[in-house]
Amino acid sequence: MYKLGSLIGALALAGATTIAIAGEWQALPDKAPEPADNPTTTEKVELGKILYHDPRLSSSGTVACASCHNVMAGGEDNRSGSVGVKAQVGGRSSPTVWNSAFNATQFWDGRAPSLEAQAKGPVTNPIEMGMKSWDDVVARLKLIPGYSGLFAKAFTGSDVVTADNAAKAIAAYERTLITPNSPYDKYAKGDLTALSEQQQRGLQTFSETGCASCHSGPGFNGSQNGQGVGDYIKFPGIENGALEAQYGFSKDLGRYEVTKNDADKHLFKVPTLRNIALTAPYFHNGKVKTLEDAVAIMAKTQLGKDLNPQQVGDIVAFLNGLTGEFPKQEMPRLPAYPGKTFDFE
Amino acid sequence: MYKLGSLIGALALAGATTIAIAGEWQALPDKAPEPADNPTTTEKVELGKILYHDPRLSSSGTVACASCHNVMAGGEDNRSGSVGVKAQVGGRSSPTVWNSAFNATQFWDGRAPSLEAQAKGPVTNPIEMGMKSWDDVVARLKLIPGYSGLFAKAFTGSDVVTADNAAKAIAAYERTLITPNSPYDKYAKGDLTALSEQQQRGLQTFSETGCASCHSGPGFNGSQNGQGVGDYIKFPGIENGALEAQYGFSKDLGRYEVTKNDADKHLFKVPTLRNIALTAPYFHNGKVKTLEDAVAIMAKTQLGKDLNPQQVGDIVAFLNGLTGEFPKQEMPRLPAYPGKTFDFE
Repeated sequence: MYKLGSLIGALALAGATTIAIAGEWQALPDKAPEPADNPTTTEKVELGKILYHDPRLSSSGTVACASCHNVMAGGEDNRSGSVGVKAQVGGRSSPTVWNSAFNATQFWDGRAPSLEAQAKGPVTNPIEMGMKSWDDVVARLKLIPGYSGLFAKAFTGSDVVTADNAAKAIAAYERTLITPNSPYDKYAKGDLTALSEQQQRGLQTFSETGCASCHSGPGFNGSQNGQGVGDYIKFPGIENGALEAQYGFSKDLGRYEVTKNDADKHLFKVPTLRNIALTAPYFHNGKVKTLEDAVAIMAKTQLGKDLNPQQVGDIVAFLNGLTGEFPKQEMPRLPAYPGKTFDFE
Repeated sequence: MYKLGSLIGALALAGATTIAIAGEWQALPDKAPEPADNPTTTEKVELGKILYHDPRLSSSGTVACASCHNVMAGGEDNRSGSVGVKAQVGGRSSPTVWNSAFNATQFWDGRAPSLEAQAKGPVTNPIEMGMKSWDDVVARLKLIPGYSGLFAKAFTGSDVVTADNAAKAIAAYERTLITPNSPYDKYAKGDLTALSEQQQRGLQTFSETGCASCHSGPGFNGSQNGQGVGDYIKFPGIENGALEAQYGFSKDLGRYEVTKNDADKHLFKVPTLRNIALTAPYFHNGKVKTLEDAVAIMAKTQLGKDLNPQQVGDIVAFLNGLTGEFPKQEMPRLPAYPGKTFDFE
């Protein structure tokens, strides 16, 4: 039994069933926080699920949110760069949509302060979904008869089919995309058999190596306090010529591209480790193909440590224990544009 | 009340609840025929649904069967030509997967004699899913741990992860993609209120104009007797310079491309009219954008008739009555390739 296991055991015996184990190890909440101006409702979630899966939100009619953030899989596309309209490949690897509701900011550079703001970005990005404007998107949605009723159910007002409401609905849907009850969560709640011995050893190594100093909190994604403190980290933190030559991590200036503040050069949002086994390849540029390599590189570039193969294997085993339970979802029906055709490019 | 309605009414009063109204108007069966060597089972359907939605069956990892045959919509992509890997656009418009189990042959040129044979085609087509070979697909599937168990549940034998079994599973899933209980079906079964007065008039016009001579049977897709008789039709049947100049229908030699028999030039499979309102644009090249135009062009090129706007409107109203009920489906979970990355192009 490892030290943390003992602490957890003690807390479990004392009847603690949720979060805040030893002040550090926390289970994933069952519900995501909701902004005051966009409470989650069944109607909004249903509309959002439809919009999220509707490729008509792209210029070609072929790219939906779900194309690069596949909820049937790990919430992204398992590619280094995502493929948008006209086979254009994005410069950063798609982050997972699963548990993104627990990120204080969105995108690798944190440029969106909310899921609502994030949802609007890719649709009009020329290399992602390629729509010229949200006005064009809304015009399309208004031509699809079924959408009027769906928006009217989800929102009040006289003009409900709007970009803001579409983004709110998509965000509301995304707040339901939570994967609780991973082996780690069960362990954190007191079931000491939920992680194997190797996984428990990996948790210990993860902690001792210092990984949790950034990958903290129930999402293993930083403080998420909304102040940005602890949510961004310089990557690579320690320059390494060989790794740079191999992976080109530093080509991307990260958060600097948003703020143009020199201090933000190469800062990236701390990504969640939830379901990390399902979201290869790794890092902002998706150049690292295996979780083993990702763990070893992180230790080297962020903590100046060389892990041995057993340590890497143990941490990877632990990270596999962060794969949660995916909620069952019914496939949405996309409302039709009966007998008519959009001018897809 | 129109003549056909009367006949149906008489039959309904006599207690007839299914098919064979006046020898011509038939409701869609609730079950699709199954080949002797591939009986439909729950396990096969579940595996097939997963494979059907798995973009890792494409060279880029971005194109699944569902990409061009979207079961959340009308079973295709509402484009004139589908977009495959590297943004390549196919030469023919994607046919709907819904009710494809009622087609005796598959593809516009009928080159696949079964759903099983069809399922194998697009995966290795260089402009569709772009895999170099099914051996490569199988090699990938074998690297995904979850697939072994899914194939083992669905099939017997020592080497179950095979191309044949993948195709069988996809076909078994597709046999569940049936949309019964359209307004027309309810009408055909005796509910004379299921079609509006205009739709009933449209049914009459559809019949009198001669549309049903090709679009016959419960699928409105020809005889489907497996002999090919009545399953193919020359299109355009009557040459029309103005329409040819506008739409270029004759650029495609149709079934001739399969048989190299001169008599098969410009022959195409009679496509189903089920859910036709959801599958714009129309015809093998998808050049006709509205159902109104499609109906008028068909009457002109196949039957030598000029329909007036009311006749067109009535037939379109009737065709809207062929939109069926789509079965609820749970989203599949795609098994992971944990912590590893495929070499997607």
